[in-house]
Amino acid sequence: MPQFSVRTADLRPSPIREILAVIDRPGMVSFAGGLPATETLPAWRVDVPAASLQYGPTEGDPGLRELVSGRLCALGLDAPASRVLILSGSQQGIDLVAKLFVDRGTAVAVESPTYLAALQAFRAFGARFTPLEWDAAPAAPLAYVVPTFANPTGACATAAQREALAASCLRGGVTLFEDDPYRDLAYDACDRTPVASGMAGGSWIYQGSFSKTLAPGLRLGFLAASEDVFAQLVMLKQAADLHSCRLSQHLVATALADPDWPARLERLVAFYRARRDRFAAALELHLGDVATWSVPAGGLFFWLRLTREVDTRALLAGALDRGVAFMPGEDFYAGAPVLGTMRLNFSHAADPDAGLAALAGLLADVG
Amino acid sequence: MPQFSVRTADLRPSPIREILAVIDRPGMVSFAGGLPATETLPAWRVDVPAASLQYGPTEGDPGLRELVSGRLCALGLDAPASRVLILSGSQQGIDLVAKLFVDRGTAVAVESPTYLAALQAFRAFGARFTPLEWDAAPAAPLAYVVPTFANPTGACATAAQREALAASCLRGGVTLFEDDPYRDLAYDACDRTPVASGMAGGSWIYQGSFSKTLAPGLRLGFLAASEDVFAQLVMLKQAADLHSCRLSQHLVATALADPDWPARLERLVAFYRARRDRFAAALELHLGDVATWSVPAGGLFFWLRLTREVDTRALLAGALDRGVAFMPGEDFYAGAPVLGTMRLNFSHAADPDAGLAALAGLLADVG
Repeated sequence: MPQFSVRTADLRPSPIREILAVIDRPGMVSFAGGLPATETLPAWRVDVPAASLQYGPTEGDPGLRELVSGRLCALGLDAPASRVLILSGSQQGIDLVAKLFVDRGTAVAVESPTYLAALQAFRAFGARFTPLEWDAAPAAPLAYVVPTFANPTGACATAAQREALAASCLRGGVTLFEDDPYRDLAYDACDRTPVASGMAGGSWIYQGSFSKTLAPGLRLGFLAASEDVFAQLVMLKQAADLHSCRLSQHLVATALADPDWPARLERLVAFYRARRDRFAAALELHLGDVATWSVPAGGLFFWLRLTREVDTRALLAGALDRGVAFMPGEDFYAGAPVLGTMRLNFSHAADPDAGLAALAGLLADVG
Repeated sequence: MPQFSVRTADLRPSPIREILAVIDRPGMVSFAGGLPATETLPAWRVDVPAASLQYGPTEGDPGLRELVSGRLCALGLDAPASRVLILSGSQQGIDLVAKLFVDRGTAVAVESPTYLAALQAFRAFGARFTPLEWDAAPAAPLAYVVPTFANPTGACATAAQREALAASCLRGGVTLFEDDPYRDLAYDACDRTPVASGMAGGSWIYQGSFSKTLAPGLRLGFLAASEDVFAQLVMLKQAADLHSCRLSQHLVATALADPDWPARLERLVAFYRARRDRFAAALELHLGDVATWSVPAGGLFFWLRLTREVDTRALLAGALDRGVAFMPGEDFYAGAPVLGTMRLNFSHAADPDAGLAALAGLLADVG
């Protein structure tokens, strides 16, 4: 047998992977992934610039870095183009930050539940998890947080929570790692000030994605970071993949520079707001008696608590048999899971009724 | 100060990065990188398929995996499509394998000199290096080798060396990691049988790249691996970037399936063979008295040994001042470097004479 590293000895397949493997079955309604609606993806004919085919800088193409920097500075972040790093999707940012901070046994403060592929990336480096509280100093050198439309809960931190977290990270010398892929998908008013904008003088990484607003298949995201960590992240990025796809960078830069970009975002938000509202109504109809939830002010997910404490992982096979996929909530917990939770994506399926009725039928049958 | 992981505490910028930062200066002749000639890059107008913009499978798009599998099986590798993983450039393969095998202090057997960004990727996980000998069992759980047109030396292992290495890895339970980005750029006849094709029953990873034959800016490579390591690499790939750019995968699959692909490779090889021969003649003219080299049978580099033992890192600033970039040889050594070595790329610069004359002038002046 090959001698694997101690860190990765207990590597396990992701539950997402196993679900994604079956959602392409004909007739399957998927509430599982965080997929954009196919009808929101752009229709492109592209003349590929020769420069997009050659090797490029690790940090990213200068024009795209400038565009990202302009947007981040407008949010109050100290993010000049020289401290913007283009990523091969924001998942890569998690991998790089984990590599930079986490040895076997290093504590990482996280909300629980939180984004499960972040937990996986940290675990691959041997992290242990400590709870992230909004009003107490994280007991860890690194705090990972999705303050705006969190995955899976959809929660949006208040202005007071954001300020308190920044202050306690500053006081405790904790590096803040803010993951903000959903911020542009805001359907109702709420504070979205980046926590990292309150971290002047401290260590922070702020990252975002073009997967939710443009096209996930391009695998393009970005981060900005304080001076004391930026250069290290660039070096790790170079060792990881030299640089990100330049054709993706070209397409994203073109889209961002297009005068239609703000209107595109508005159309997207209106489209998803309508999907959210339709999903909320269908939820009420089919699952109103057996689950509770909050209507999310943004993002892509409803987070359900069943009225009974059932391990929803055990329900998944039955759901797939009935032609509906969902994401069991248990895997989003850093420690012991709360049973009876599930995450339902509302952006991808055009008509949620049949799928939610099937879920309701399953819950009634196993009741 | 942020508390970095012990593994990455002594992270240093790559010498390549620092050179790449100046080679765009007007008038600079660069022999430094491994860049394809710009005139060999394809001219593309692309109708972007909607599927290329959506999330996709971690392993890669099925059609591209099939195409890669067909080519690898034809080389004698046991590489069904189900054990092909599409990578975001073959640098990513090194990062994933390093993550899977290397804890702080884990030995990795490498040739010395060898590809310096591989050394960096292994070092970021805390590797120590042991010598790879072609005819002795590697004293390490993992052996990394570029048997065909090695970077930086251009050397191509003989059939006997390949067989001996496979046999000793099998006997010693060593996982073979074969990196083969240059195999299609073969200008003279030599054995190119993958070492991994002789590893039946053992553990192996074989990887290749589309950066040298198609377009590095797409950041697309692939690996195939034995059953006992493949699933783990897929899980690590998922945590690293979910999957590779689907538009790049679409473009590469289209190019590979094009009936013109074999003719494209023939034209490319003829083009680079002519550049190699012209470079060899210019080298003889300008540096024949002060250095020795072998004409490489393939790949992209000449490896020079100066007749004097000078640390070529100390020459770089002077060379850049004279408008010519090269890669000092010292950084390619896993341990103590042999002084007086340099790597010169012959694929990118159309006319090597002025650059080589400038290098010769510099060597004469510091003599």
